[in-house]
Amino acid sequence: MATKRLKAAVVGATGLAGQQFLAALANHPQFQVVKLAASKRSAGKRYQDAITTDAGQVSWYGDGRLPADLATLTVQDAEAMDASDLDVVFSCVESGPAKIVEPKYAEHCAVISTASAYRYEDDVPLLLPGLNLEHVGLLERQQEKRGWKGFIAPNPNCTTVGLAMTLAPLHRLFGVKRVYMTSLQAVSGAGRSPGVIALDVVDNIIPYIPGEEEKVEKETQKILGDFDGDEIRPARFSVSCTCTRVAVLEGHTEAVFVQLERPVTRDEVVGAWRKFGAEFTARGYRTAPEHLIEVNEDPYRPQVRLDRDAGGGMTTVVGRLRPDGDDGHGWKYMLVSHNTKMGAAKGCILVAEHLLDQGLIG
Amino acid sequence: MATKRLKAAVVGATGLAGQQFLAALANHPQFQVVKLAASKRSAGKRYQDAITTDAGQVSWYGDGRLPADLATLTVQDAEAMDASDLDVVFSCVESGPAKIVEPKYAEHCAVISTASAYRYEDDVPLLLPGLNLEHVGLLERQQEKRGWKGFIAPNPNCTTVGLAMTLAPLHRLFGVKRVYMTSLQAVSGAGRSPGVIALDVVDNIIPYIPGEEEKVEKETQKILGDFDGDEIRPARFSVSCTCTRVAVLEGHTEAVFVQLERPVTRDEVVGAWRKFGAEFTARGYRTAPEHLIEVNEDPYRPQVRLDRDAGGGMTTVVGRLRPDGDDGHGWKYMLVSHNTKMGAAKGCILVAEHLLDQGLIG
Amino acid sequence: MATKRLKAAVVGATGLAGQQFLAALANHPQFQVVKLAASKRSAGKRYQDAITTDAGQVSWYGDGRLPADLATLTVQDAEAMDASDLDVVFSCVESGPAKIVEPKYAEHCAVISTASAYRYEDDVPLLLPGLNLEHVGLLERQQEKRGWKGFIAPNPNCTTVGLAMTLAPLHRLFGVKRVYMTSLQAVSGAGRSPGVIALDVVDNIIPYIPGEEEKVEKETQKILGDFDGDEIRPARFSVSCTCTRVAVLEGHTEAVFVQLERPVTRDEVVGAWRKFGAEFTARGYRTAPEHLIEVNEDPYRPQVRLDRDAGGGMTTVVGRLRPDGDDGHGWKYMLVSHNTKMGAAKGCILVAEHLLDQGLIG
Amino acid sequence: MATKRLKAAVVGATGLAGQQFLAALANHPQFQVVKLAASKRSAGKRYQDAITTDAGQVSWYGDGRLPADLATLTVQDAEAMDASDLDVVFSCVESGPAKIVEPKYAEHCAVISTASAYRYEDDVPLLLPGLNLEHVGLLERQQEKRGWKGFIAPNPNCTTVGLAMTLAPLHRLFGVKRVYMTSLQAVSGAGRSPGVIALDVVDNIIPYIPGEEEKVEKETQKILGDFDGDEIRPARFSVSCTCTRVAVLEGHTEAVFVQLERPVTRDEVVGAWRKFGAEFTARGYRTAPEHLIEVNEDPYRPQVRLDRDAGGGMTTVVGRLRPDGDDGHGWKYMLVSHNTKMGAAKGCILVAEHLLDQGLIG
Repeated sequence: MATKRLKAAVVGATGLAGQQFLAALANHPQFQVVKLAASKRSAGKRYQDAITTDAGQVSWYGDGRLPADLATLTVQDAEAMDASDLDVVFSCVESGPAKIVEPKYAEHCAVISTASAYRYEDDVPLLLPGLNLEHVGLLERQQEKRGWKGFIAPNPNCTTVGLAMTLAPLHRLFGVKRVYMTSLQAVSGAGRSPGVIALDVVDNIIPYIPGEEEKVEKETQKILGDFDGDEIRPARFSVSCTCTRVAVLEGHTEAVFVQLERPVTRDEVVGAWRKFGAEFTARGYRTAPEHLIEVNEDPYRPQVRLDRDAGGGMTTVVGRLRPDGDDGHGWKYMLVSHNTKMGAAKGCILVAEHLLDQGLIG
Repeated sequence: MATKRLKAAVVGATGLAGQQFLAALANHPQFQVVKLAASKRSAGKRYQDAITTDAGQVSWYGDGRLPADLATLTVQDAEAMDASDLDVVFSCVESGPAKIVEPKYAEHCAVISTASAYRYEDDVPLLLPGLNLEHVGLLERQQEKRGWKGFIAPNPNCTTVGLAMTLAPLHRLFGVKRVYMTSLQAVSGAGRSPGVIALDVVDNIIPYIPGEEEKVEKETQKILGDFDGDEIRPARFSVSCTCTRVAVLEGHTEAVFVQLERPVTRDEVVGAWRKFGAEFTARGYRTAPEHLIEVNEDPYRPQVRLDRDAGGGMTTVVGRLRPDGDDGHGWKYMLVSHNTKMGAAKGCILVAEHLLDQGLIG
Repeated sequence: MATKRLKAAVVGATGLAGQQFLAALANHPQFQVVKLAASKRSAGKRYQDAITTDAGQVSWYGDGRLPADLATLTVQDAEAMDASDLDVVFSCVESGPAKIVEPKYAEHCAVISTASAYRYEDDVPLLLPGLNLEHVGLLERQQEKRGWKGFIAPNPNCTTVGLAMTLAPLHRLFGVKRVYMTSLQAVSGAGRSPGVIALDVVDNIIPYIPGEEEKVEKETQKILGDFDGDEIRPARFSVSCTCTRVAVLEGHTEAVFVQLERPVTRDEVVGAWRKFGAEFTARGYRTAPEHLIEVNEDPYRPQVRLDRDAGGGMTTVVGRLRPDGDDGHGWKYMLVSHNTKMGAAKGCILVAEHLLDQGLIG
Repeated sequence: MATKRLKAAVVGATGLAGQQFLAALANHPQFQVVKLAASKRSAGKRYQDAITTDAGQVSWYGDGRLPADLATLTVQDAEAMDASDLDVVFSCVESGPAKIVEPKYAEHCAVISTASAYRYEDDVPLLLPGLNLEHVGLLERQQEKRGWKGFIAPNPNCTTVGLAMTLAPLHRLFGVKRVYMTSLQAVSGAGRSPGVIALDVVDNIIPYIPGEEEKVEKETQKILGDFDGDEIRPARFSVSCTCTRVAVLEGHTEAVFVQLERPVTRDEVVGAWRKFGAEFTARGYRTAPEHLIEVNEDPYRPQVRLDRDAGGGMTTVVGRLRPDGDDGHGWKYMLVSHNTKMGAAKGCILVAEHLLDQGLIG
């Protein structure tokens, strides 16, 4: 079947997240990267040159090798890039520039973004594949309201992803009342410029990531909220977080304590996780994992280095499920979620695959 | 003033904790190490030889250099060591051997121990300097009941120490109702034989430390319990923990969420911590820090590598105090506590200094 | 083509190296693992149970998941295992046990081993795929001399592999006169029992690996020696090493200074590496990489984490080639070689594939 | 004795190296820090404010606490700072700015610098305490030639220090003919802006440090060269280096292979090291260690984390001395040297103490 591939651009293409978009889109049957954009500093250079330092270092950090056809593409200035001939823009610029450029692109085409710039707008959903795809309807509200041909669909913060994913089935089936979460986050989440310096995490823990806790608390409620066809009413349980950075390269680990609305058994919790998302993964999207959630019963799991790549980095692995108190309402568990795959580039691509399937892209 | 020093033994002297006892007792004005004991394998060797491998490696891991007078002492078999001419035994053997040898010593003299073997017995207090020294009275019950001249006084688990220390002033002044804690613990807590292997913590987190969570939950309640002259009634608030191991050499970091019985302000919490233990530290014990708790207002503190040695490793450093909810009952914070100083050898020595001052040793 | 697969056993199957054999042999078209053996402690257990701790931890460290058909195989006692119905034994037990069990197996079948027990015997070659396969002839001498149906073919030490591989084309074409090498070795080389403890390598370097330097010096000369149909005359250049252990999980990095017999240009060195082994890799053995040596011109390469998996962990990556002095005789470079793939399990399997092709197995 | 302290400035005071100067000069009996200077960005701010980020993070990385009297000093613009009322400037700015500002200061007073800007000028010595203090005479040539009241005295590169220190006694007594060195360097050498990012060194090695190898090769020859009263003739032995960066916080480890002019015994080498610098350390300068070189016979030493702080970070620790070949000419060893103490701030201060003693400062 010789379907024509949709035209895609990656904006922020020279950074760590941008490179992961490029790696994940290589040979994608539905999306073809036809434009690359970045800041003015890189504009006008061939992509390979733009990521090569004066000392000759090729700063490629995506999986596998830099795709040869992209190496020779000329990088455009993100602010000046014309999106009128595109079907989708994958954006991973910083929040400041995103605020400016994403609406320009959205006038013409779909924008799937890792930036937080528009996450908290009333007409913007935070789509998590297999979890709240009914929120997709809000994109039409957004188009109407803003008069855009396209839309902006940001993904949640990488730390929110695993938490929302594991809470979703519990919330639907049993009701979530209260959540305490402590994260141990990978250094890749901070990118490379400047990134986390070794002096701060070797034999150390950074106890603070500015803005992160508030993001996770707010986003989790929004993702698990109800969409009434017009707006999203955030879930009403409270979420309280402490976010830390540790000497781990990839993958966030989270220790979760949750209070449920009604008492449940261990088997009910495990069953809820194991069944979650089966109808979604059955659709066979290219970037979707076999299971959204994997439950590992080994008491020493999940371990971030061993589990972050489950399902190609798209599966959240949970373990260490224990009752918290003895009334069946309280449970505690740990999870590992890949921050730069499901939590960034590949997560956005999976959303795009779904929106394409739903006729919202292309 | 030429006071005679009390005669002390260190049992488990060849291990990591034992070496830290030796380092901390070097030149101590009140205690003189006159005997060293360990397992049968080391018995009969000079101490220096006992810690030197066949390959010629001198396995000394205490602060500073191995004290010269101890290097030539002959290591005794812990099971056969005569304690009748001793004033105090510092014991840091594993729980199994501790069960057997500590009562033998306690027939004759005080036993201050890092082992968990007797921590949960009804007639055994868990003394934390400056915090629950009124529990010392239980040692007399123990002596009466067991017919010993001495007693066994274990210190709490190293992960309990910082948590109990920071909860104590809150519990006394405002009442603690509920505690959630996630720990990020140093590898030194597991010692060297076998210890934590690098393959398990480089670019990784170990999500499970067998028995640790239960210990912290139970010990915190006991330490903060009331002693009525006869027994300790555990504090009634619940404590729920998740304990993990990270690639940090020394010092435990803990993220704490606490619910209080009554609403308080930020200043009240900080004030409670800052004043805590002033009357205790004023006594001027040699191993006591200037402050039991230090509050650091820098949002990026406490950091374990920068803060673990505060007060010679005897001060618990807290920071990141934030309200949890808006009714003044919920608070969250982070703490750093030195696991092998306040949490082990030096913590035991400080207890001994107090018991000596109170006339219970010597 | 329905070729019958040869019957293989993995001895030392429960350890780190053994698991890597199992992972690499999964679905191998030529070898079928029909027996697993280990020490007496594991004998009689199902494999899955043998690698599961009392705490429920499944200690599987091979790539991917534990193959289901192996999970249920009963582990045999290595000392008692009958090799008479096998075609090949892959052995990765410690040197002591290897000394005893490998000759028993070799009476019946081929033994490919990671153990050093027989490496230095006169009738035992150290085969490196694509490099000295003419030494295969010595295996026949060994069979005659020892009266075995099979033979013992050990692979070299993992640190020798990358060094010998990169020196081989230089030695053949230009003559090697003198080699200085400093290694920065991964912790996986020490396995898991006890392995390298985190306290020794976090924020630290271990400056000594007992026996390692002597092995590399001796083995490099043997591998690059001449086989005259009867015995191997070691290469006559001297090799001097310093071997260290660093906080890297997998992959050895080596800094090499080499003096050549005759002056050469940079292009000659690079050309020699690039062409090396082309006729060997052209044979298309399943486990062979596309290139034995890859030259990376980026001045910041090779980097062990980025380059160790080149060619499925079977390619040695070199870089930082610089003249050492200005007479064309001296050169310095760095290399990265995967210690547990090309340097252990997969390297042995590639040797087996070649010996099978040559009619020496089966 | 109430000697008046000399007036000192620290230029580059806000950076990592500058802070180490401040920490090391706190309570110094001979030097009083009266001015602090940095780039324009910090100029005009109180020092404490200049090192505090917008997020409230106090970026103090010196040993101990920030001295209170310095916290309130106003930071000056390095380019505009008046040195006419100073006795000595400790400079640790980057090479570019150093080129400009150091001569301005040197018109008026002594400049002791960690920058490489003037290291390779003919009239500039590279002073290493206790090693080549006879090169001090070149400072007078410099003053004459440049018409300065003061002078510029840079310290060598941190990686040169340990190598030159351990070669010096060998060169004097036996003659050095050839040196091969591979370094494993700490991340602190790269400072904090931007410093080495964790993504580059966790589970990895950086095989290249631009310019470092050339510096070490050239500087070692200069330091060990002969001063004939007029100029320094570099030592004529060749030095060849490979410099790498590893996940170590502080302290450089170096593996050295050396060829000597004449055969010597192991005892002669050890004796040469042990005696080296005794007359220098006997002078009792405040920052000098008890021994310039410490020989550790434990085969597992030196280990960088255990040995970097020997002599307050001013002692080079050597070990693993082995013959390289059997003719007594070749030797190999490892060394650990503290890169930010002896190799930077404290090394400069020790030079200043000597120059003060010699009447060249003040």
